[in-house]
Amino acid sequence: MPQKPTLEFWLEFASTYSYPAAMRIDAEARARGVSVRWRPFLLGPAFKANGWTTSPFNLFPAKGRYMWRDLTRICAALDLPFAEPSNFPQNTLLPARVALVALAQDWGEDFCRAVYRAQFGDGRDIGETSAIADILNALGQNAETVLAQAKSDSIKALLRSETEEAAARGIFGAPSFFTADGEFFWGNDRLEAALDWATR
Amino acid sequence: MPQKPTLEFWLEFASTYSYPAAMRIDAEARARGVSVRWRPFLLGPAFKANGWTTSPFNLFPAKGRYMWRDLTRICAALDLPFAEPSNFPQNTLLPARVALVALAQDWGEDFCRAVYRAQFGDGRDIGETSAIADILNALGQNAETVLAQAKSDSIKALLRSETEEAAARGIFGAPSFFTADGEFFWGNDRLEAALDWATR
Repeated sequence: MPQKPTLEFWLEFASTYSYPAAMRIDAEARARGVSVRWRPFLLGPAFKANGWTTSPFNLFPAKGRYMWRDLTRICAALDLPFAEPSNFPQNTLLPARVALVALAQDWGEDFCRAVYRAQFGDGRDIGETSAIADILNALGQNAETVLAQAKSDSIKALLRSETEEAAARGIFGAPSFFTADGEFFWGNDRLEAALDWATR
Repeated sequence: MPQKPTLEFWLEFASTYSYPAAMRIDAEARARGVSVRWRPFLLGPAFKANGWTTSPFNLFPAKGRYMWRDLTRICAALDLPFAEPSNFPQNTLLPARVALVALAQDWGEDFCRAVYRAQFGDGRDIGETSAIADILNALGQNAETVLAQAKSDSIKALLRSETEEAAARGIFGAPSFFTADGEFFWGNDRLEAALDWATR
């Protein structure tokens, strides 16, 4: 039996275009018989390597204004709730760590989607522990237990090594996709091309 | 009789993703009954406003490496000849001026496509007068006459005012598209969305 094609999905919770990508990757991958591995990481170190102290969408206002309008159109076309967050980019250290706990179990992708929806759909600040606890409770998890696991040394080290691997792979933005043969695609608008490449 | 929908296509000859956009916009627009107005401009002043002294693809090498690979894939899928130019970005002052001469006549779009093909398909340096003269000759134009028109005060002033209008519109990259109702789209990958919006 041939092995199922795979795609790595590198995501950063503060990344605006990762929101529609996270919401639609499951259906697009299933339609092509592709298995997706979700790999949360932190984009901050890659930005710092470019000399950026915050998101380029804040540093370059014309590009930022365009992005919010573009994302509004994209979410409308996908029928996804969307409102520009009152603070951007948000601190994603805690949700990224919790995602690594969750992805080692069977509720990781649901958690990731819920974090994006909370931030870009419901106006929550996902840097706040209370927002993450609410998501964990809604998923039927014990928030106290999971939050303690997320702050363990092993999870902290895992997020650091994932973030270092992203930099070593040349990842400079999110969402990013890697096929098993090393082909690299960047952006929600490259999701279909990445999945198609994975099935070649 | 209803008026034909229109789309403005803002292009910079050094812009890599403007190459596939220029090569396919005519067919995509015809398929939707949209009339396209080609508006060449210079992206340099917008880059300078961001504090960039050259293309961001040179300033941020990881992004640049990705772009060349991405463009290689896109051109292969479109069956467009492509080779990374030996110098990038090229000086596009002369071809932009000539394009304004040509677009006021009936061979402007052919000229623009030929400039992109020369640079990204044939390895020419479009900043050199000889490369532009070869394109003009191939199009059956009198190169000497056209080059003289391109250096006239009126054409110089027109390119300056087009470039200023691009900045005033918030354009920060190319290709950029504007619909008649002011909707702004950026990137070769937004061409279909821009044309579809124009027909709404």
